Amino acid sequence: MTEASPTVPRTGKLRLGLFIQIAGHHIGGWRLPEAARPGENLALGRQIAQIAERGLLDMLFLGDSLSTSAASSPSLITRFEPLTFLSALAATTRNIGLVATASTTYGDPFNTARLFASLDHLSGGRAGWNIVTSSSGSAALNFGLVERPGVHDRYERAEEFVEVVKGLWDSWEEGAFPRDKTTGTYVDPSRLHVLDHAGKHFSVRGPLNVDRSPQGHPVLVQAGSSEDGITLGARAAEVIFTAQPTLPEAREFYDKIKRRTAELGRDPERLLVMPGVMPIIGRTREEAQELFEKLQGNIDLPLALAVLSGELGHDVSGYPLDAPLPALPPTTGTVSRAELLRDMAERENLTLRQLALRAAAARGHHILVGSPTEIADVLQEWFEARGADGFNLMPPFFPGGLELFVDLVIPELQRRGLFRTAYEGTTLRANLGLDVPANRYTAARG
Amino acid sequence: MTEASPTVPRTGKLRLGLFIQIAGHHIGGWRLPEAARPGENLALGRQIAQIAERGLLDMLFLGDSLSTSAASSPSLITRFEPLTFLSALAATTRNIGLVATASTTYGDPFNTARLFASLDHLSGGRAGWNIVTSSSGSAALNFGLVERPGVHDRYERAEEFVEVVKGLWDSWEEGAFPRDKTTGTYVDPSRLHVLDHAGKHFSVRGPLNVDRSPQGHPVLVQAGSSEDGITLGARAAEVIFTAQPTLPEAREFYDKIKRRTAELGRDPERLLVMPGVMPIIGRTREEAQELFEKLQGNIDLPLALAVLSGELGHDVSGYPLDAPLPALPPTTGTVSRAELLRDMAERENLTLRQLALRAAAARGHHILVGSPTEIADVLQEWFEARGADGFNLMPPFFPGGLELFVDLVIPELQRRGLFRTAYEGTTLRANLGLDVPANRYTAARG
Repeated sequence: MTEASPTVPRTGKLRLGLFIQIAGHHIGGWRLPEAARPGENLALGRQIAQIAERGLLDMLFLGDSLSTSAASSPSLITRFEPLTFLSALAATTRNIGLVATASTTYGDPFNTARLFASLDHLSGGRAGWNIVTSSSGSAALNFGLVERPGVHDRYERAEEFVEVVKGLWDSWEEGAFPRDKTTGTYVDPSRLHVLDHAGKHFSVRGPLNVDRSPQGHPVLVQAGSSEDGITLGARAAEVIFTAQPTLPEAREFYDKIKRRTAELGRDPERLLVMPGVMPIIGRTREEAQELFEKLQGNIDLPLALAVLSGELGHDVSGYPLDAPLPALPPTTGTVSRAELLRDMAERENLTLRQLALRAAAARGHHILVGSPTEIADVLQEWFEARGADGFNLMPPFFPGGLELFVDLVIPELQRRGLFRTAYEGTTLRANLGLDVPANRYTAARG
Repeated sequence: MTEASPTVPRTGKLRLGLFIQIAGHHIGGWRLPEAARPGENLALGRQIAQIAERGLLDMLFLGDSLSTSAASSPSLITRFEPLTFLSALAATTRNIGLVATASTTYGDPFNTARLFASLDHLSGGRAGWNIVTSSSGSAALNFGLVERPGVHDRYERAEEFVEVVKGLWDSWEEGAFPRDKTTGTYVDPSRLHVLDHAGKHFSVRGPLNVDRSPQGHPVLVQAGSSEDGITLGARAAEVIFTAQPTLPEAREFYDKIKRRTAELGRDPERLLVMPGVMPIIGRTREEAQELFEKLQGNIDLPLALAVLSGELGHDVSGYPLDAPLPALPPTTGTVSRAELLRDMAERENLTLRQLALRAAAARGHHILVGSPTEIADVLQEWFEARGADGFNLMPPFFPGGLELFVDLVIPELQRRGLFRTAYEGTTLRANLGLDVPANRYTAARG
């Protein structure tokens, strides 16, 4: 077993993704004078992608949801559909990975396999798929369902869905298209394979009508932290996004999912754990603290309570603001997210008002306020203590919050030998150090 | 009624779209020495888009199908998924429209509304949706259906699907996002509308999680030529693509769909009829004829018979090659397409071999072989005789087949006053002369 324990000194580079929410990850970020005007704005998206690529980040990551309301966080009310947005960015970037979220509950395997294979071709091998099961009840109403399916059903469907997608990605072997002008041989039919999948949730014949893409399979990403989510991640994912507010919790999660991966017979080093982190950066600690206070001062309390209610899956707007969070009925939303916030409130003895302000600031993710050196210290500590293989960066506002990280923290990480000084390759797999999966039919040929 | 009759002299400009099939529309096109190597190749796509934009064409059009086999026409075996491909091209073009095909039978209205709204934002208002109902039985097998739904059911579903999508596109009124940094007002909830659609095929609550896009509604395109297809086109479409091999047939179709549009209370001038045309261009007629013969000589007869069998919905590979097409059982494919080819065989007294070579060359579309002047003459004749409001160009190979048209035929059409000398605007609607539809809620407010 290659799983390492925290007593072995850690070498290697950490991974850095950029989680894009165009109005900023902090709910008050867009109100800063220096924040760009958000909205469905490709020019801003291109600017963000260029800064991220200048910083040699591994990937851009687009979250998603399949419903909205005016009471959402500004970044989440409306937004680009992730696959179309990242396809546009594929045309104006060269090295950075492009990870889009797509649902296994409200999508279907044939279209999903196609969309990601197409993005992988468009980007020359930089696509990743963040597999989600869409826990929101309001999403169900946009797809003709009165009630959302239960978590276990969603994950059972997700597992089969992912298997079908991977099967479709193997439809064509390398060399299936000789395209010989002289002989007129365009295709070699012996390298085309029909999947003929018939399972509990899906019957999909195949083959896929997209050629095998540069990465073979786009990189699989997963972010569910429930027991079912961890099992799917350990079985299928190559990158795990997660919300971990403290190092002890991060280490516990890291250890658990790596063990689960090894138990399933996979190499745990081929599963990269990347917690979210919101870096609030100043040239000095005081400057950073001042920025954080400005951001917190921009929070509208009713909106913060609405966001907290969404995260907890229960309306808490009627409870006393300056008392602790009362006992609540079981969540109607994501169980692991509600637990994270309830644990945080208990651990730090927060009032409802304080919890709402924290939830609105970073939705339970780790907030890191400090100078570039202090930020690098914490990232290094988490990396070396095996709480993280890298981080999913959540700048509080765009583009300035990202620029501060790229211009001030990245050089510090590079000085410490913790981050690359040039891209290793042109595909996301090459940059993450992940192999291209063998085509199952080529492998069977021997 | 504004519908014009052929006796009134016609003024105005004709519309030109580019139907992209990256291996060329002629089945032997890719084998020409000057043809680019096809495949999922963004660089070639960008080059094609730039030539089309240099030629001031109205739009790029991507067809689609949801299944494949090695016996398909080379352009159709594998290809980019249209929405991701056009999103990438949106980032590298400025004026040209981007029309993607998407199915109402194997998609759902919420995702479809989102994808096209997103493309419309990414392109600054250049998106169009070619609405198809996917007649292929092999597509059904990729989506868990043993039998494809019947044509009438598919079109009934399509009509409701389109209504839901249009409703979702009206979710947000103009001005819904003040994004006022000082007051903290990001959204104006009074300009957000919940669709709450509950119909026979779909229950979709809404609202859409994409802001209203630059064109309000992406341009609606339709290409079905069955009775149900014509009705859907007349009711909902703004552009009609169609295969019309001769002027009399084109005039009959044009007149029929314009009349149907007027009967439904719409202005028939707001419905643009654009037949496909494959221009085989030489500097002289002899040069063009020589190119055509070279292309026809590149056709592989078994593949041509497979393509013809697909178009007829019946395997004809076992029949005598040099006898007329025998009587066949009802098609298992698209009825109007099978009829078109049977009519062509009868009208021109073609043997099975000749029909297969014709079907493989342009799938029943009009093939036009000649010098630039001769090609312009025919396009002008069809336009002035109201057989067409414009054409969907199907170059036999890429990029050269398109370059010949842009460099030789476009200037000739411009000299005759039949084609623009600069783009009228930056949106597809502006260039096609189509209004932006009013938001239904804004209109109801008065």
